[in-house]
Amino acid sequence: MSRHFEKAEGLHEHPDEVTQEYLFNQTMLRIKEPKRSLDFYTRVLGMRLVRKIDFPEMQFSLYFLGYLSEEDAGEVPADDAKRLTFTFAREAMLELTHNWGTEDDEAFSYHDGNAQPQGFGHIGITVPDVYAAAERFEKMNVEFVKRPDDGKMKGLAFIKDPDGYWIEILQADMLESQQS
Amino acid sequence: MSRHFEKAEGLHEHPDEVTQEYLFNQTMLRIKEPKRSLDFYTRVLGMRLVRKIDFPEMQFSLYFLGYLSEEDAGEVPADDAKRLTFTFAREAMLELTHNWGTEDDEAFSYHDGNAQPQGFGHIGITVPDVYAAAERFEKMNVEFVKRPDDGKMKGLAFIKDPDGYWIEILQADMLESQQS
Repeated sequence: MSRHFEKAEGLHEHPDEVTQEYLFNQTMLRIKEPKRSLDFYTRVLGMRLVRKIDFPEMQFSLYFLGYLSEEDAGEVPADDAKRLTFTFAREAMLELTHNWGTEDDEAFSYHDGNAQPQGFGHIGITVPDVYAAAERFEKMNVEFVKRPDDGKMKGLAFIKDPDGYWIEILQADMLESQQS
Repeated sequence: MSRHFEKAEGLHEHPDEVTQEYLFNQTMLRIKEPKRSLDFYTRVLGMRLVRKIDFPEMQFSLYFLGYLSEEDAGEVPADDAKRLTFTFAREAMLELTHNWGTEDDEAFSYHDGNAQPQGFGHIGITVPDVYAAAERFEKMNVEFVKRPDDGKMKGLAFIKDPDGYWIEILQADMLESQQS
């Protein structure tokens, strides 16, 4: 029996044992202005800031955010080095990189990866109810790329973060709920 | 007491209750050639392909990969719709998008986000031992952006995936182990 759940060319069946201790820790996006990004990710999307690191010599800061259960939040170490270890030992952290000064340059903006040249596409947040989430985002004046009923793919939305990065908003059971 | 673990401007202390059911499900990258990317992510990095979806009308395919424990792997539903729900209900999935035909165009390549214009930076994989992981990648002829002892930031590496996207290789306790 395959360790994979679909057939496709290139799949490897016997990876080294050590890789089974690897984990997908982070996705890094550069941001122009921390204040507006932190507001967005903590107020609109409900994440927590777990670790912030300033590199004054190199003039940049890193912000690590993620969703923590109340239980996990209670276990976050107060010690900075230990809290970094906690941050790096988890799955699904968002790392925001701020190069100091970009926020003061009106013309400055980052590339979203969906305009040319393309590459990175989006991050995706799973929500309990995509229509309720979209309604909430509307009220908060969040910018949409696609509302849940736009286009062919019903029941999923795309919004933009303050730098214009796309965020897919999806409901885990969207296909099952459409079938029923 | 703050729900965050660092001080910074813009942090919100009282997000809507519903956001606490949100989860950071996916990061999407476009890929030129599924065969080489699936080989890389399943052989070199040890992920599993959980769900693949073809959209023949729109000429693209999506591949969802991630790290699954043996226990989780035993719970992956065989039914396609249920397996999609499983995929979307998890944290830390990697979504690879293949637009059909790009693999046949020699000149075609995706933008890594680190050359200009910048935006997305990298994904990051936490490993038990960054030096051992780097040695393993060397043997597999993986391309490095930075070896663990290059530059000022010792103890972390950057490699490239087949499309040139950067992948940070980090060890959770790197700062603590450097202090000791």
